[in-house]
Amino acid sequence: MAIMKDKILVSEVGPRDGLQNCAGVMPTEIKKQWIQGLFDSGVREIEVGSFVPPKLLPQLADTGEIVAYAGTLPDLTVLALIPNLRGAQNALEAGVDAVTLPLSASETHSMENLRQTHDQVVENVKAIRALLDSVPPDQRPRFEVGVSTAFGCSLEGNVPEDKVLRLSERLVEAGVDELGLSDTTGYAQPLQVKRLIRKVREVAGAERVKSVHLHNTYGLGMANAFSAYEEGIEVFDSSQGGLGGCPASPGASGNIVTEDLVYMFERMGVDTGIDLDRLMACRKFLQAGLPDEELYGFTPNAGLPINFQPSH
Amino acid sequence: MAIMKDKILVSEVGPRDGLQNCAGVMPTEIKKQWIQGLFDSGVREIEVGSFVPPKLLPQLADTGEIVAYAGTLPDLTVLALIPNLRGAQNALEAGVDAVTLPLSASETHSMENLRQTHDQVVENVKAIRALLDSVPPDQRPRFEVGVSTAFGCSLEGNVPEDKVLRLSERLVEAGVDELGLSDTTGYAQPLQVKRLIRKVREVAGAERVKSVHLHNTYGLGMANAFSAYEEGIEVFDSSQGGLGGCPASPGASGNIVTEDLVYMFERMGVDTGIDLDRLMACRKFLQAGLPDEELYGFTPNAGLPINFQPSH
Repeated sequence: MAIMKDKILVSEVGPRDGLQNCAGVMPTEIKKQWIQGLFDSGVREIEVGSFVPPKLLPQLADTGEIVAYAGTLPDLTVLALIPNLRGAQNALEAGVDAVTLPLSASETHSMENLRQTHDQVVENVKAIRALLDSVPPDQRPRFEVGVSTAFGCSLEGNVPEDKVLRLSERLVEAGVDELGLSDTTGYAQPLQVKRLIRKVREVAGAERVKSVHLHNTYGLGMANAFSAYEEGIEVFDSSQGGLGGCPASPGASGNIVTEDLVYMFERMGVDTGIDLDRLMACRKFLQAGLPDEELYGFTPNAGLPINFQPSH
Repeated sequence: MAIMKDKILVSEVGPRDGLQNCAGVMPTEIKKQWIQGLFDSGVREIEVGSFVPPKLLPQLADTGEIVAYAGTLPDLTVLALIPNLRGAQNALEAGVDAVTLPLSASETHSMENLRQTHDQVVENVKAIRALLDSVPPDQRPRFEVGVSTAFGCSLEGNVPEDKVLRLSERLVEAGVDELGLSDTTGYAQPLQVKRLIRKVREVAGAERVKSVHLHNTYGLGMANAFSAYEEGIEVFDSSQGGLGGCPASPGASGNIVTEDLVYMFERMGVDTGIDLDRLMACRKFLQAGLPDEELYGFTPNAGLPINFQPSH
């Protein structure tokens, strides 16, 4: 069991994945306060936005300004989503620490999401690699690809593991630094999580496969996170308040809730570096910036157990 | 990993643990329809009530009649909670297949719940053992003790594992057939679940430690169930619709939701013997019998994934 880490990293994706699924637009000033609050509570990696056309995602139109702000916070890894080479150029100019590009293992979903085939995305990855290599190493952002719908697709249904493995090999050849496995649809189950992590690590190298991105559609988000942890995963995406949950299906479609994820690890004695009371206090920024949005989370509802001892 | 079973048993506790935490009283006729519906969907163990004074729990005052009804369903294990010897006598007369007595590892909680010290409960266990031994073996109910607050107590906080282990030894000596580990407060975390199961099995014998009873207070119910499954547990208590969740803290305090539990196992390819569509249809009996009660569950909200293949 030496594979399990004493310390894990929570990568907060609320400012990107959460906000892009909200009907309202959070004011830039409140977004900055929220990111500052997350940082003050101990969060050390935040996906702060997305370099896509503002017309497509007005919620993230201020990504450049937010990257600049977040860049002033010491030791914070500032991550941004990019859909293509143009996005990578903008991210580079803005000064991010890392870029993440989504590639759907389900080609139907890839066409829907990026309007690109797998071949096109792989070509993009090569072009982005070349762009990043043109930058001096100390200013070069880390380059991740998140393999989305890796555990199943709401359009295609089951996604064969071999497809994920072949794509992973191609992405490594094309020059990505890291591969993340994304359960975009919440279809994953815990045994599958372990199995796929093991297989992808075999073809891509364990050092490139450190992170998972989980949703809670079927209430299995924490079980899947625990299973991934047992398999040696050390970076976990999550969203404060489960922001961006689908209104048609309360609590069902959002990312796993950061508060519950941090609770689970701290309760297990695994260090997240995050102070839960301070983290939960940051929900006030969501309430202020998106007053109509419902916030989720069992831990904030229940309150911490008596005599609760965080890991650190 | 041969320790993990191909088939698990879901023990539905809604008619007992769920209903006793609801403000309303479900009419006896609807309760029978619900139990019939659960049976028809494939449920093969149900905790149908509790032999406590009707004044204390009017919701379960019809337990004798419900036991008689459930006893007509072939191959259904009819379980009832008993607080003491008197309860055991009543359960025996009613004709249950199994009795379960709760013993809180936290003595503070034991005094609060049963008004009995550990020594008094152990004496009760011996007396109940003697009573059951006076019955011919083919009519003798199985005798379980659920060690409640085994993973922590909302009154005492942490419950030392040594206390659980000493109690388990005493209960085996006093003659229980099986020991279940109950996370009454929802304080458990998945690594603790594995560790405690392993330790209790060492002192009580693995054949006596087959079941867990989990709550979802901190959203870790499914993670804890998965962890217990990985450790070889094969019986899982749960409650349809998470019935009995605390209104002060929505979704927070109830048992784990049967629908989500069955979904997880079937999705993992582990046979529960339960048809999920038919199970979810039984929520109509709860809506009819307890119209003011909120029902929980991610799976019923989300609907089954496309191309969902049950295990069987």
